[in-house]
Amino acid sequence: MAKNFKTSIFAPKNIREIFEVEGVKFASTNCGLYKHKDDLTLIHFAEGASVGGVFTKSLMASPPVLKCRENLKNGTAFALIVNSGNSLAMTGKKGEAIVEKIISGVSSALNIKENTVFISSTGIIGQLFDENKIINSIPTLKKNLSKNNILQTAQTIMTTDTFPKTASIQTEIDGKTVTITGVAKGSGMIEPNMATMLAYVFTDASISSKILQELVAKYVENSFNAITVDSDTSTSDSLLAFATNKIMHKQVNSIREEHFQNFCTAFEKIMQNLAKQIIQDGEGISKFITINVFGGESEKSAKIVGKAIANSPLVKTAIAGCDPNWGRIAAAAGKTSEKVNLEKFSVEIGGFVIYENGEIKPNYNEEDVYKYLQGNEVEIRVGLGVGNGKSTIWTCDLTHAYIDINTDYRS
Amino acid sequence: MAKNFKTSIFAPKNIREIFEVEGVKFASTNCGLYKHKDDLTLIHFAEGASVGGVFTKSLMASPPVLKCRENLKNGTAFALIVNSGNSLAMTGKKGEAIVEKIISGVSSALNIKENTVFISSTGIIGQLFDENKIINSIPTLKKNLSKNNILQTAQTIMTTDTFPKTASIQTEIDGKTVTITGVAKGSGMIEPNMATMLAYVFTDASISSKILQELVAKYVENSFNAITVDSDTSTSDSLLAFATNKIMHKQVNSIREEHFQNFCTAFEKIMQNLAKQIIQDGEGISKFITINVFGGESEKSAKIVGKAIANSPLVKTAIAGCDPNWGRIAAAAGKTSEKVNLEKFSVEIGGFVIYENGEIKPNYNEEDVYKYLQGNEVEIRVGLGVGNGKSTIWTCDLTHAYIDINTDYRS
Repeated sequence: MAKNFKTSIFAPKNIREIFEVEGVKFASTNCGLYKHKDDLTLIHFAEGASVGGVFTKSLMASPPVLKCRENLKNGTAFALIVNSGNSLAMTGKKGEAIVEKIISGVSSALNIKENTVFISSTGIIGQLFDENKIINSIPTLKKNLSKNNILQTAQTIMTTDTFPKTASIQTEIDGKTVTITGVAKGSGMIEPNMATMLAYVFTDASISSKILQELVAKYVENSFNAITVDSDTSTSDSLLAFATNKIMHKQVNSIREEHFQNFCTAFEKIMQNLAKQIIQDGEGISKFITINVFGGESEKSAKIVGKAIANSPLVKTAIAGCDPNWGRIAAAAGKTSEKVNLEKFSVEIGGFVIYENGEIKPNYNEEDVYKYLQGNEVEIRVGLGVGNGKSTIWTCDLTHAYIDINTDYRS
Repeated sequence: MAKNFKTSIFAPKNIREIFEVEGVKFASTNCGLYKHKDDLTLIHFAEGASVGGVFTKSLMASPPVLKCRENLKNGTAFALIVNSGNSLAMTGKKGEAIVEKIISGVSSALNIKENTVFISSTGIIGQLFDENKIINSIPTLKKNLSKNNILQTAQTIMTTDTFPKTASIQTEIDGKTVTITGVAKGSGMIEPNMATMLAYVFTDASISSKILQELVAKYVENSFNAITVDSDTSTSDSLLAFATNKIMHKQVNSIREEHFQNFCTAFEKIMQNLAKQIIQDGEGISKFITINVFGGESEKSAKIVGKAIANSPLVKTAIAGCDPNWGRIAAAAGKTSEKVNLEKFSVEIGGFVIYENGEIKPNYNEEDVYKYLQGNEVEIRVGLGVGNGKSTIWTCDLTHAYIDINTDYRS
């Protein structure tokens, strides 16, 4: 990315508090994939970590994603290397060979097994690059590893992002304080069909890879799988969670155990917080939009309707223009094949009921909604009148800035 | 629409030749739904016509669509009334009552049965209007009915369209010359799940309603159902075909009959021509894009992939910016769940093969494609490497002008 785009209005005003995680160190550098910012980060788990992950469902999953899927079977992580500036997606066998060489370089430098090294790459699709740019940078990264370099990692993995995304929380398991800290990146090509572009969550709690895998699979649905910027699923989406097992506490054998519930709630918060930050940095965003669909035949049905509304260019542009054009919301819901009871169908914007019981509400005042839409956050509620299925989707509006960013991504 | 948007660069330079159709008369006027243009058109079949039609699959189908579906069962048309400026969609029982009153008004004025009157409405969703605007205009329309007013009808049904859409052809059935003339409108909210906004085809051939219905159902798939501007299916999509049975020729008992094949070909041409004109007037269009997908598991599968590419905001913006970012095309194909053989997957832009046999073509020169993309028409070919299914989709790019049009549709 040559150009700098305007920082999102939702960028945090102050640097968020980040709790360090025992057993994880970070280092970042510039290896030449970008000109003006760091583009390579190394994360080291000196004594190993449990690991869980979910990845893009794209048929065109990138070589780094394929490698992560393979190494995940092993269940232990000693390192994660991430570059921005090139995704290696659609580079076929040549890209796979590059991934092997990078993994091998990390393995040698840190003296760890190759199948404990995880990798992500994000950026342009379909271009090869010289892997030595990365391999030659590993010694420097190794030297600079530190527990408190996590913000740099969040900055390094950015592409069209305009602010670094971190989330950190402390909770307890059976009275012992544990930390969960995550970073994420993503701004365009965002309708994760699993996770968004890249997200990493770290904890010092003692949690097996099996339990971690259950956690990410469970909470991805109402976090990263509940957001969309532009309906485009990336080839590189990766969510990885690591537990360094540094804090000794009562063992966790199931995600349903009573003493593990505070952790689960905190983990869900971190996932949702990171997912929402990706929308808050959605390409060209001027409004953060929450879509609550209820009354669906099932949760899945409510989600399909929510995504249809969230991805409708006409809904997104109407909101960008503060236009209370609720008919576009109804039309977007109507283009799905999901069950709707038109007699009970309802549309509400910002708490103003517009359509209800098969007709426009008699006292509906368009001016009220127009005023409400001047704000930066918009809530839409749509009732399908069929069952109890509900779903929340987060998205952003569609503005001139999105067009600017995407008509010259590579210029 | 208060604002005038820039005329599409694809607008025809000269008025297209329009052949009159025996047995059909047209009249248009302004009834007050728009300020600055005609917004009401009446079409009269003095001696009746066979009729076939297909309509939106939207769950939120508008009251005029519901009425057409009902009257279609009757199989005879004496009149069609169309207004622009208000779609009556999402107006519930009140909207249905308005439709009844309009139908009744046309029926009385022309002395025809109510169930032979067809109706379409296009424009803003979810607003009521005073039906007397329309009813009081019917006497004037009746007085002005004429065979050669069809261009006015094409102009009257426009909303955000920037040019009127007509197509006309003469062919023969068993040696007798017959005419097919059609009009259409549509520019935004275009991913017809059947037909686009509004399209009407008229012929003086002697064709039963049953045969007409078969014709529209068959040819809608590779015409109106093969276009998309913005993935938004309208609540008002209606395609109606009328045959006035004025030309006496050998009877047509099946669309497969030998002597009917020239007519079928001509009919398909008219449908495709009108569908493509809708894309050529796609909101904010700067490039007309043809997407050919081949090698799919089935025709349906190829169509799903083609639509995913056509609706990808990242593909559409890349093309707007003349960026040969073919990775976005691959990523869009990859987000579907359709079968792809990655070893045989291929991407081609403007005849330049970019990706083939699992890798980027070694001699691919990005500069060539960049130059090609400067043109106004772009052809993309994507091979899935699985079977023989193929499909062609027409779409347009996504530009600043689309945002302009849709952030202030009602301002």
